Amino acid sequence: MGEHLPSETFTLAVDAMGGDHAPEAVIDGLELASIRHPDARFLLVGDEARLAPLLARHRRAAAACTVRHAPDVIGNDMKPAAALRLRNASMRVAIDAVAANQAAGVVSAGNTGALLMLAKIVLKTLPGIDRPAMAAIGPSARGDMVMLDLGANVLCDTRNLVEFAVMGDVFARTVLGLTAPTIGLLNVGIEEQKGDDRVREAAEVLRRSPIAAQFHGFVEGTDIAAGTTDVIVTDGFTGNVALKTAEGALKLILDLLRQVFTATLPGKLAYVLVRPGLVRLREWLDPRRYNGAVMLGLSGVVVKSHGGADAETFAHAVDVAIDMVTHHFNDQIRENLARMVAAAAKSRADKDTEGGTRLATAS
Amino acid sequence: MGEHLPSETFTLAVDAMGGDHAPEAVIDGLELASIRHPDARFLLVGDEARLAPLLARHRRAAAACTVRHAPDVIGNDMKPAAALRLRNASMRVAIDAVAANQAAGVVSAGNTGALLMLAKIVLKTLPGIDRPAMAAIGPSARGDMVMLDLGANVLCDTRNLVEFAVMGDVFARTVLGLTAPTIGLLNVGIEEQKGDDRVREAAEVLRRSPIAAQFHGFVEGTDIAAGTTDVIVTDGFTGNVALKTAEGALKLILDLLRQVFTATLPGKLAYVLVRPGLVRLREWLDPRRYNGAVMLGLSGVVVKSHGGADAETFAHAVDVAIDMVTHHFNDQIRENLARMVAAAAKSRADKDTEGGTRLATAS
Repeated sequence: MGEHLPSETFTLAVDAMGGDHAPEAVIDGLELASIRHPDARFLLVGDEARLAPLLARHRRAAAACTVRHAPDVIGNDMKPAAALRLRNASMRVAIDAVAANQAAGVVSAGNTGALLMLAKIVLKTLPGIDRPAMAAIGPSARGDMVMLDLGANVLCDTRNLVEFAVMGDVFARTVLGLTAPTIGLLNVGIEEQKGDDRVREAAEVLRRSPIAAQFHGFVEGTDIAAGTTDVIVTDGFTGNVALKTAEGALKLILDLLRQVFTATLPGKLAYVLVRPGLVRLREWLDPRRYNGAVMLGLSGVVVKSHGGADAETFAHAVDVAIDMVTHHFNDQIRENLARMVAAAAKSRADKDTEGGTRLATAS
Repeated sequence: MGEHLPSETFTLAVDAMGGDHAPEAVIDGLELASIRHPDARFLLVGDEARLAPLLARHRRAAAACTVRHAPDVIGNDMKPAAALRLRNASMRVAIDAVAANQAAGVVSAGNTGALLMLAKIVLKTLPGIDRPAMAAIGPSARGDMVMLDLGANVLCDTRNLVEFAVMGDVFARTVLGLTAPTIGLLNVGIEEQKGDDRVREAAEVLRRSPIAAQFHGFVEGTDIAAGTTDVIVTDGFTGNVALKTAEGALKLILDLLRQVFTATLPGKLAYVLVRPGLVRLREWLDPRRYNGAVMLGLSGVVVKSHGGADAETFAHAVDVAIDMVTHHFNDQIRENLARMVAAAAKSRADKDTEGGTRLATAS
């Protein structure tokens, strides 16, 4: 059958009812996605009665979609445990379709905690991966960068951090199109002795791994916005706090800038003069541009769109999912894990031989 | 003898040789500090031959200072272990003076890691405190806020987090002048079940403690810049990353703004119009305005000035040290710890009595 080509036909399951503007923004987004990706098919899961009239007005989306009815919706404030019981929720049915190999991945703008828990339970982790991670793309002074874990795991050990590095590498290749992304391990300083055992051991493993050439070593909080590396690896507690801290700092300064430009008449005049530049800056930093937090390490592609996503940003989340599917993201993870395991085994074998030789010499 | 009054005379040890612009910026800073705090005396520690000509040109500083000769200097890149061996370094001799009760506290703009290690070893932690923490004041949308730990401890347990809350409370009272500062515990979400055992247990302890009324519960990364609470408590790993992430995000956006205002002629014109507002904004966010990261929980006041501090910012670090000394920071910590211990003992005793009563009723 030859190599898989990006033009092959594939299906993505789409949670039609997740997000603040569902299902309208979802259908509008699929209309855009259908134009960009003519070979993609969508299994649209949600309330049939609400979806039918919307699809009637979206010719392209209608042509690309098959509707699967799911009467329930997982609310934004619903606890993951409660969400787990809603077996006929649109999000659940969409994930079930991936588990049943009826779709290559799922996109949802719904409740993040529920999506993560359902995806973990229904899809399971990839063989060889201990725990999935949540990753996202963000802006930096040197272009887009990938950061993970952003909160899937509050407790991470050395193995998890190493696996996040492997998954972040493949994600940056797949979605950012980089050939050899650089990888940094987030720490409280860049010197080798900094941090706790967990990060020091993970650095040690990465330095001796097949991706050693891409491993930059430790990076600090300032390196996130500086874009020192293409991928930044950290535990879910630190990553979640760092992401939200950066968002908060940006919001603070944008609010202060708004005051500068609205408080005085010269300010208002100045705003008119630099408006295009400020709008570009604001758009560039807008978290929605980076739409598509991704759950990596699961048996299936899982993309979380921003809850407040409009059509364009939802379409962007679909782009991310399609990039991952067409580039066989999970196959690449499997291959890289196999290379890691083989290298580790070889390293152990070499050591044993060495030890044996030394022993033979000594005796 | 009555109550201690803010006007009492006291001595601060000052590391004259620490920082990028030492000893000049230090002496200039002490000239300013001597004007602001006429009752303060300074034990100026450093190379006598370099200090004498500088003091000859600074009349007020000279009047307030006693020079103690220390021939060695701990460099910015020196490892703490190497710094520990330099017994005649200015930083060490200054800390030794605090340990010998010749000074109430120490201010240094030198190597942070060395200062932290030397202060811990020479001064020891306060009775009842397991580990010292590094705290700093920063800007938020609702005014200045205190955050700790910023990196003194990469690993923290429940007890450490609770003690940081106690110390952060006293610090915010002392240096920000708040009467009942609100306290938040940094987590990946605000719901009770979020996070790891460590933060959940610390929240539980604080909810039943004498400072329960001030305890806001969990806060997220976005709450740092939003100023949701006056004090934010976290472990040193997360705090260090969050602080540096916010610094990096601010630097990124300020660099981008510079481009907006310099790339085009309308941009340059706009800059002229909003310059005063932008300068104020920049100054307000300038980390140097918040000069004085403080090591809390040691037997003596220890203030770390920014390494690149100029005279004004060094004087600000001296202000922080003087606030802590005159408000008897460590006595307040001791009292609050005693209240915590008493409350915990009472809570245990109540439980025992309850148990005993129940037992008596049952039999």
